[in-house]
Amino acid sequence: MHETIGLACGNGGEENNELIKKVFYKAFANEILAKSEDAALIEEGRLAMTTDSFTVSPLFFAGGDIGKLAVCGTCNDLAMMGAKPKYLTCAVIIEEGFATQKLERIVASMQEELAKNGVVVVGGDTKVVPRGSVDGVFITTTGIGEVLCEGISSGALKEGDAILLSRDIGAHGAAIFAAREGIALSSALESDCASLFPSVDALLQAGIKPHAMRDATRGGVSAVLNEWAKSSDVCIEAEEEKIPLGDEVRGICEMLGFEALSLANEGTFVLALEAAQAQQALKILQTFHPNACIVGQVSKKYPQKVVLHTAWGTTRFLEMPSGELLPRIC
Amino acid sequence: MHETIGLACGNGGEENNELIKKVFYKAFANEILAKSEDAALIEEGRLAMTTDSFTVSPLFFAGGDIGKLAVCGTCNDLAMMGAKPKYLTCAVIIEEGFATQKLERIVASMQEELAKNGVVVVGGDTKVVPRGSVDGVFITTTGIGEVLCEGISSGALKEGDAILLSRDIGAHGAAIFAAREGIALSSALESDCASLFPSVDALLQAGIKPHAMRDATRGGVSAVLNEWAKSSDVCIEAEEEKIPLGDEVRGICEMLGFEALSLANEGTFVLALEAAQAQQALKILQTFHPNACIVGQVSKKYPQKVVLHTAWGTTRFLEMPSGELLPRIC
Repeated sequence: MHETIGLACGNGGEENNELIKKVFYKAFANEILAKSEDAALIEEGRLAMTTDSFTVSPLFFAGGDIGKLAVCGTCNDLAMMGAKPKYLTCAVIIEEGFATQKLERIVASMQEELAKNGVVVVGGDTKVVPRGSVDGVFITTTGIGEVLCEGISSGALKEGDAILLSRDIGAHGAAIFAAREGIALSSALESDCASLFPSVDALLQAGIKPHAMRDATRGGVSAVLNEWAKSSDVCIEAEEEKIPLGDEVRGICEMLGFEALSLANEGTFVLALEAAQAQQALKILQTFHPNACIVGQVSKKYPQKVVLHTAWGTTRFLEMPSGELLPRIC
Repeated sequence: MHETIGLACGNGGEENNELIKKVFYKAFANEILAKSEDAALIEEGRLAMTTDSFTVSPLFFAGGDIGKLAVCGTCNDLAMMGAKPKYLTCAVIIEEGFATQKLERIVASMQEELAKNGVVVVGGDTKVVPRGSVDGVFITTTGIGEVLCEGISSGALKEGDAILLSRDIGAHGAAIFAAREGIALSSALESDCASLFPSVDALLQAGIKPHAMRDATRGGVSAVLNEWAKSSDVCIEAEEEKIPLGDEVRGICEMLGFEALSLANEGTFVLALEAAQAQQALKILQTFHPNACIVGQVSKKYPQKVVLHTAWGTTRFLEMPSGELLPRIC
């Protein structure tokens, strides 16, 4: 570890993992935490529990705000473990002088998103800190969900599994970047910020058995695929040209040299499941978003590696993201 | 509501209650939240859930640090509902450039306190924000506890009940104030920051049936007693001279005109129970702290009011604190 905490330690990638392992997991080690992924399984696996702090800047952006993000982010982590969001707590740290009306807008967004998840806020905390001690508003939500489907895990991928994306990638990262830099080129560009439980519920109700699900937040699709490849000791092969990418996101990536696969998403998930169920799952996902698609499969070719096949017939390894692309993305 | 959020909105007193009611409860209204006190009862009352953000300044103070506080604060909220702390999540927001060694000290304090509560961290989140976006480190902990004793509530006080304090009051508020203002007069002054589950467990195991318990954090003992008097529609009468007060805290209060009863505590609780059990409970509490004592009783004299009887034979109403005494106390 470095002597001080750098921005990259919050990137959802390599440095972030190092901080979590060397400082937090080392001290807090226990059986539940060791098995914890997007959420931890508690009460003999009946319930899932997860927490997230949201520090996004700007607080309001195309497609959402910090309130919507705080409900989606935590509920999505539950959904990704096959759990139905049930209870939420909400702790808010507010900078002195923050406009009450803005706070009300944020809370209204939360309310709207709570309904979509069928989840209730059972408790909260409000701290107000002097001007300059925090930038605007930070929100921490913690969720408890009821596990509907067991065994979903980043370690459960099998050779032959299909890899699906629920929609086109990178919209949240690109939208935040555009908002922050005042890039007005892309009026159609909106964050993908959305609640994923409805899609997951539809999949489960149709009898789909996901091996792994993960919303591709900080670190993007690259981080998810790399973590899965490592945890399951498999190779994930994807067709680069099949990965759905909106024109606006592609434009921002080309202009600025970003890797779209490493851009953050807040309502886009990756799904791994038996190839035999892939078409059925795809049809269901397409009812939620037309851009859902099958992008790859699991093999044994290069264990623990993610391989991208390009349209030109070449292949390249997709690495775990490192460094800090966009601080305060979520 | 004012147009902007003032510091007083985070004081644990009147303005804080107004913000919570008018902005948060209004939007999030549901049955569980309506009954929620220090923690919410979920899963048919089998589990308790609570969350708290910690923003204390300075991060390290006599008697504790933000890590100890973050575990004590949340576990104490569970203990006060008669619940045994079982699972904790920990979300940390770190300022870029924060010293890794300091973070490790904070995490070590957390670890020590987790053991005292027999609780495990099952999940967490780490965000790093650019310099200036947050002051040092803020921690949000959310806890789940197993309810050992039902019916503990601020609305359960009965005429004739005895009111006990677990130790002398105001140490946390005075210690933070002294640390912040560089007051060196009181070398013996230490925050009371401590885990309360061991005392609560001892009470419950001895067959004590608390009507209400509350750790007197922001807003101090004044806020607790006023809330209880209102919720139970009773009068709480206390003997001012019986309220235990350390010399150092008394000194700071006299010097600066503070009301000790409104100073924050982080390891001191108020207990209401049948008078017949008061002596037994007192003996148990005294094994944890010699200054535990019986300070008053519940009557019907002035419903919804708290009355202090002074040594001079006079009486005065103790009001709900308002305004902001010390921001970033916890």
